[in-house]
Formats: sequence, structure tokens, C-alpha cells
Amino acid sequence: MLEHALAIAQTNWDRYLEDFKQLLSIPTVSADPVFKADVRRTAEWILSEMQRIGLHNCRLLESAGHPAVYGEWLEAGPQKPTILMYAHYDTQPVDPLELWETPPFESAVRDGRLYARGAIDDKAGVHVNLKAVETILAADGALPANFKFFFEGEEESGSPSMTGIIQQNKELLRSDLFVVSDGGCEEDQPYVLTSVRGIVGAEVRVRGPVRDLHSGSYGGVVLNPAHIVATIIASIYREDGRIQIPGYYDAVRPLTKVEPGAEWIDERDLTLAHRDTGLEKEELWGLDGYSYNQRQTALPTFDVNGLYSGYQGVGMKTIIPAEAGFKASMRLVADQDPRDIAEKFSAYVKSFERLGAKIDVTLKGAGWAVQCLEDGPVIEAIQQSYVATYGRPAILYRQGGSVPLLGIIHAELGTPITNLGFGNGQNGHSPNEFVFLKYLQLDLQTALHFYYNISMRLKPAGGR
Amino acid sequence: MLEHALAIAQTNWDRYLEDFKQLLSIPTVSADPVFKADVRRTAEWILSEMQRIGLHNCRLLESAGHPAVYGEWLEAGPQKPTILMYAHYDTQPVDPLELWETPPFESAVRDGRLYARGAIDDKAGVHVNLKAVETILAADGALPANFKFFFEGEEESGSPSMTGIIQQNKELLRSDLFVVSDGGCEEDQPYVLTSVRGIVGAEVRVRGPVRDLHSGSYGGVVLNPAHIVATIIASIYREDGRIQIPGYYDAVRPLTKVEPGAEWIDERDLTLAHRDTGLEKEELWGLDGYSYNQRQTALPTFDVNGLYSGYQGVGMKTIIPAEAGFKASMRLVADQDPRDIAEKFSAYVKSFERLGAKIDVTLKGAGWAVQCLEDGPVIEAIQQSYVATYGRPAILYRQGGSVPLLGIIHAELGTPITNLGFGNGQNGHSPNEFVFLKYLQLDLQTALHFYYNISMRLKPAGGR
Repeated sequence: MLEHALAIAQTNWDRYLEDFKQLLSIPTVSADPVFKADVRRTAEWILSEMQRIGLHNCRLLESAGHPAVYGEWLEAGPQKPTILMYAHYDTQPVDPLELWETPPFESAVRDGRLYARGAIDDKAGVHVNLKAVETILAADGALPANFKFFFEGEEESGSPSMTGIIQQNKELLRSDLFVVSDGGCEEDQPYVLTSVRGIVGAEVRVRGPVRDLHSGSYGGVVLNPAHIVATIIASIYREDGRIQIPGYYDAVRPLTKVEPGAEWIDERDLTLAHRDTGLEKEELWGLDGYSYNQRQTALPTFDVNGLYSGYQGVGMKTIIPAEAGFKASMRLVADQDPRDIAEKFSAYVKSFERLGAKIDVTLKGAGWAVQCLEDGPVIEAIQQSYVATYGRPAILYRQGGSVPLLGIIHAELGTPITNLGFGNGQNGHSPNEFVFLKYLQLDLQTALHFYYNISMRLKPAGGR
Repeated sequence: MLEHALAIAQTNWDRYLEDFKQLLSIPTVSADPVFKADVRRTAEWILSEMQRIGLHNCRLLESAGHPAVYGEWLEAGPQKPTILMYAHYDTQPVDPLELWETPPFESAVRDGRLYARGAIDDKAGVHVNLKAVETILAADGALPANFKFFFEGEEESGSPSMTGIIQQNKELLRSDLFVVSDGGCEEDQPYVLTSVRGIVGAEVRVRGPVRDLHSGSYGGVVLNPAHIVATIIASIYREDGRIQIPGYYDAVRPLTKVEPGAEWIDERDLTLAHRDTGLEKEELWGLDGYSYNQRQTALPTFDVNGLYSGYQGVGMKTIIPAEAGFKASMRLVADQDPRDIAEKFSAYVKSFERLGAKIDVTLKGAGWAVQCLEDGPVIEAIQQSYVATYGRPAILYRQGGSVPLLGIIHAELGTPITNLGFGNGQNGHSPNEFVFLKYLQLDLQTALHFYYNISMRLKPAGGR
């Protein structure tokens, strides 16, 4: 029963935290091949935890990339729904390393915060779900419904193997509800995601002369690849925020513009934006005529994530660089097809190729924008849980970010999707990522409430 | 008389060579503080040679760095011109030492070549001028005009003290003609430099949000510094090669365009360009309507030397970078003032600053373009000398690179400049530097011809 489970969670909190620190101590940067063995080590650590706490049929779902980890408990019978809890165990890279106050893979507690890469995004999601299971099985010897656990290892590098893993494990992953345990509360305010933007990632390389050249001897007679890169980016970006790739907006659902003179940003968004960016209200930017929230969640973007060419050290080195390049992410909205946008981007960038400047475009992942549950028994179960723990319901929100997996789930399994995240802290993609310890504890209570609530409210629809 | 001098040079060749070996035996690496005492020992050796051969007013011109050496012979009277011969007695470093077949500061003769660091660049310039004086004074008891000798000790480390030395010795260094004895012939083909481009170096940094941001959460609402950097570069660069900084061409001397249909690149330039760049003829680039040589030497440039922002590692990191930047070199031509161009560049770049994107411009050195003599009595005197010794005139060439020293002479003294170098060999900046002995002997003859020829052809203009 819930009360018993809550008491057990309380009693075991210190031990649970030590387990979390173990999970955080393994470097799990999925984007960097250097960490390949460590990512697998993380998966194996999770697998052995699943077995230890009493999940069944535990296994690694192998792929060409990093494995996913699967476990289940399906003894609740066909009258009970089957709920799949998803989280990702991989993390962002750590650069710039020198800005971390303590090493990113050595958990450090300061002022009630636990600092480590992955502390919120999204090892918290893995940890809290495992501890919810461990707690309820300790309390009741059974879970209140059928649960599946599916923890991905490639979310931060665009989930490249996920389509294959899901296609090969369709039956295993079938359920009545797909719960994304990523994101979550911000201090005392819970949030539940109701839509995500899609994404196309790409890298562009421009190659000119075979080697770096003396800028005196060859300045004026050799095309500079860095200039071509700049020209491509500058021709896509326009100061008013409208992206100049031909056909880019063709499939975007029309939005109602903000009334002239009406407020275009609310107090909460402004506070958050100022905290994260250091920018003042008038320094924020975006497509003219639309609200901050529309720009952030319902309009597509183009952003350079990285830019490189030639000499970047101290002082000067007067060269024409042999090559230049950039990485970019495009955030998509319904109904943009990521394959279509990727093709349009590639074709447009390639149109800048000319004599003396060869251009390669490499696509780095693509995902659909997705609409999640906005109301009904699932949202009620979530709100009931949050009211019990945080004392208030979650704010339902659309997200500017992307979860490529969701598009794949939607296309391959057709499962209704919701969101219940347990990473309550800051800096998920920046140095000094941390989780608030008191909220981590509260989120375990939220999970316990949710496991019981959803088991009562959701009717099985033949899933499993 | 010339004939007598040539005979004396012939008779004394072996002794002259021994003196050269003495000069070459002192390590004179100006860039490395380890050799500081040796560099001074070289200067003192030259000073005592000047005194021995009969120059007057010999002295070291001290600076915060290495001293220059000065000597003069001004007994030819006011009807004769005053010619200043410049060379540099310091050398390049010797690394990688293990690639030298014999020690760099022990002269070794093999196959008609004298191997030693400085054998061509530029102790040959010091040596040949001193021996020309010694020879003519032995032949005639007088020089045919007024001559000053100014040998620098910091050329290979960027001439940091040169502005100060010249400013403190303006009267001493005044003359009708400044002859740079550096460079010279390549085997049987003489070369004379007639222009160098100037330079302005700069670094630009654009700062946006206080930290890297998640491109999902902030894509569409925060201005991306990498886009601003791209916009700046793309707005300066134009595909036709014309630089878009307002006023950039205001002071550029007009050039005659290439006739439509005429050849715009010669065989020698094409061969060299292909070897260095790997590009084919049609892949070369530049300002429309001008020849390759004009683009390379007589038109100004803007080139990004380095470009940086955000994530440059393997894979993707979906961020909006907090900052972006670039380093650039601008090669200038006569009569562009580097301070003026630096100001125009800074003002233009700063005009891209806007709410949410702060821009800093840091200047990284500046130097004038210099137009040396291209025709007239000085060039005639040089060509007459080369025809007499090498059997052919020199190729007059413009250089796309920059020589800060020439810019300093131009700015501080305003003396007409020409070039007559005596280092005919190879590997001036590489291991196994050597001079061809037969050409070293021929270059002493060239010097003797030049001393007499210039004395007859050049009229004094009140210099001294």
C-alpha cells in the first residue's frame, strides 16, 4: 500500500542516494565514442539493479550504437493496465570542463544540491523509477499494475538506434501508456509536457585548398572556406527570425499572431529566461508578431551549435584555412516531416558549392514533433500525485526541445504518450548540473503516488 | 675603379671566405633568449670588422632587444648620393636540429655549397656588403659615393625594436636610397622586390547569453552569436571578391584591368599555385577583371584566419553557444593607412552589435604596404649590375605578404626603397641552409658593380 511504500522510501533514503551516486559516477556521454565502454558499463549496472530489485525478463536491447535496458513486472493480470516507463541513462557531454566546480562524474553535495553530469538529465529518471519499483515490491511484494521499463542510451545523441530497437522489440514494448520520465519539476512547481518539437541535426564541412595557406601569398586568389560557411549561415538566418531555407514553413500549422500591443511574454517565462540566459526582456529575440511561448514551442528554428575553422589559439596565425564547418540543429513543429526538412536543408546548403569550395552535408539525426496527452485519466492521475506531494498540480506545457524517440513511438507503436519527469534541478546541458536533494526525495514520493494512481484510473485496452 | 676592385676581390676570395665562416660560427638566433650574448658577440664582431676595413663613426645602436650595427663612409662629398645598405645579421632558429647533416654553426663545404645557419638569410647580406667596401677601399682608397651601413639584429623575430631604433637615429639613418640586402637570386635568376602588402590583424568576439543554452529551450527566442559572426563575415566577403567594408578601397591606387579574353595568370604562378593549394586554374578565385598577380600583390584582402563557436567535438551538442568569434587578416596595398583601415573595420564590425549580442574588436598588429622603386636610375643601376654578372636582368616582383620592417622605414624615414640581396642558395628557414659558393662570389661582383653604378646614376636629393 502507498503509506507503507512511502515509509520504506523514507527509511531507505540514504542507501538509495548512495545507489544514485554509483550510477552518476560512470561517464555516460553517448555522443563521444571515447565513452563507448562506459556507456555499456552504465547499461550493465542498471540491468543488474533491475534484477536485484525483482524485475523480470531483464535484458539489454542491443543496437549498432549503445544498448537500451529493458525490464518488466507483468504479474498484475489482464484487468490491470500495462504502463511503460521510459527514461534515458545517457548524458550530455561535459565541455567546457574547466567551468565545473567539481568533476562532473564525481557526485558532490553542496547546499542541499547533488552536483554531477546526469543528476537531472536524465539519470534521475532512471533512478527514481528503479527506486519506486524497489520500494513498492518491498512494501507489497507486487506492483499495482503491469509495468515495463525501457531506458535508452542514446537520447542525447539523437536516438539513432531507437527505430531499429523498437522495430525489433514491438511486442516487448507494447503498452497502454508510454510515460516519458524526463524533465519534471522546477523547484516547487511541477510541469508536464504536452508536446515536443521535432529535430533535424546536421554538420556541414566546406573544403578549399589542400592545406592551410599563407594569407599574404594567397589572400585574394583563393576562396576562403570560412567565408563560404559564414555565407551559408548568414543566408539562412535573418534578423527578423524567419528562416530562409526555401519551403521551410510549408507544413507548419498556422498560428494566431499576438495582438499588437498585447504582452508577448509572461512573467514566469521572463524570469526563467533571465535566469538561464542572463538576458533582459528587450534582449530576447524571435519571429516578429508571435509570443515568446509560440516562438519557443510552436515555431521551427535553425541554430548553429558549433562553428570551426583554422587557427583558434592565442595571437595570430595569418592563414587561409583549408576547411571550415558548422553543426546545426533545426527544431521542427507539427506537421513538418523531418526527412523533408533534412532534404531541403541539404539541397540549399549544397547550392553554395562552387569551384574551389566543396561542401559535404552529414545528417545527424531527425525526429518528428509529437502531441502528447493533454487531459483524461492519465493527466488526472498525474495531477492527483503532484497535488499530494508538491501541494499543487503540474502546469501543462509545450516544449521547445525534442525527444526523437516520441516520434518513433508514435509511428511504430501508436501508444498514447505522457510525461512524468523526476529531474528537479538545473544546468542539464551546462556545467555544474545539479539536482535538489529534497525534491529528488519528493519525486520518489510522486512516483509512488503515480504508480498507485495510474493503476486504479487507467483501463487496459488490450495492450501488454 | 671597378676593374681593379674586381681583380682584388678575385685575389682575396679565399681570405674573404674565411672571414665569412667566422661570422657564421657565432650562433645568432634572435628569437631565443638563450642566444642573447651570442647575438651581441655577432654585433661586436661586425663592429670590429667595420672599423678594420675603414668605415667611420661605427657603433652599436642599442635597444631593449638586440643592438643594430651602424658604420658609414661619407667622404664622397655633397655632389654624390648617400646610399644606406641594410641587412640583418640575426638568423632563424635551427630546429629541428636533428635534420642538419652538419652542425648549423660550423660551416661545411660540400659540392660547391657552404652549409651554415645564416649562410643566405641574411649573414650573406652583411658579409657581401662589408667585402664590397673592403675591396673598393683597397682598390681606390675611397668609395664612389657616400655609404651608410645598417645591420639589424631582430629581423627574424619581427623587428620589435626597429621603430624605436629608427626614431632615435633618424639623422644618422637618413639617405637618398634605402637598399634592403635580403633575398636575392635563385641560382642563375636574380629577383628584385618592388612591393609588399601591408597588414591589419584583428580578433572579433560576439557574446550573447551568459552560458551555452539548450537549442530546444531557447531556439527561436535567443539571438545566436554564431549567426552574428556569420553575418559580419558574409557581409564583408562578397563572391566577386570585393570587400564590403565602407571606404575600404578609398586610398587604393587604381589598377588597369585585364583586357577581356586576355590571359589572367602566367605559367609560373599557375604552377606554384597548384603546387601549394592543390587547386586547378578554374578553382582559383579573386576580384573580377584583375590578373592573378594583381589580386595577389596589388589589391587588398580580407581573410578569416580562424573561426570558433560552441561545440566542435565529435557528434552533436544541441546548444545555442554563449559566444562566437573570428580572427582575420587584412592585407593592404598602397596607399592604405593601416590605422585608417583598422578603424573602418572596427566601426563596421561594431555596427552589427545589437540587443542581446555584444561585440568586441581587438587589433592584433598593423603595418603599411610599401611601394619600392620599380624603375628609374636605381633599377637601371641594379639591372646593369646583374646583366654584367649574371648575364640577365632581375625579375621585378611584387609580394603578397607583408614585411613589417619596410613599413617602418616607409613610415619613419620616407626614404625610397629598393632591394638587392646576396643570399643565393636554399633553406633559409629550414635545416641545411646553404649558399652556392660560385654565386656568393658572383654576388660580391654584383655588389661591386652596383656600388659604382649607383654612384654614377643617382643624384643626391639633399639626403645624408
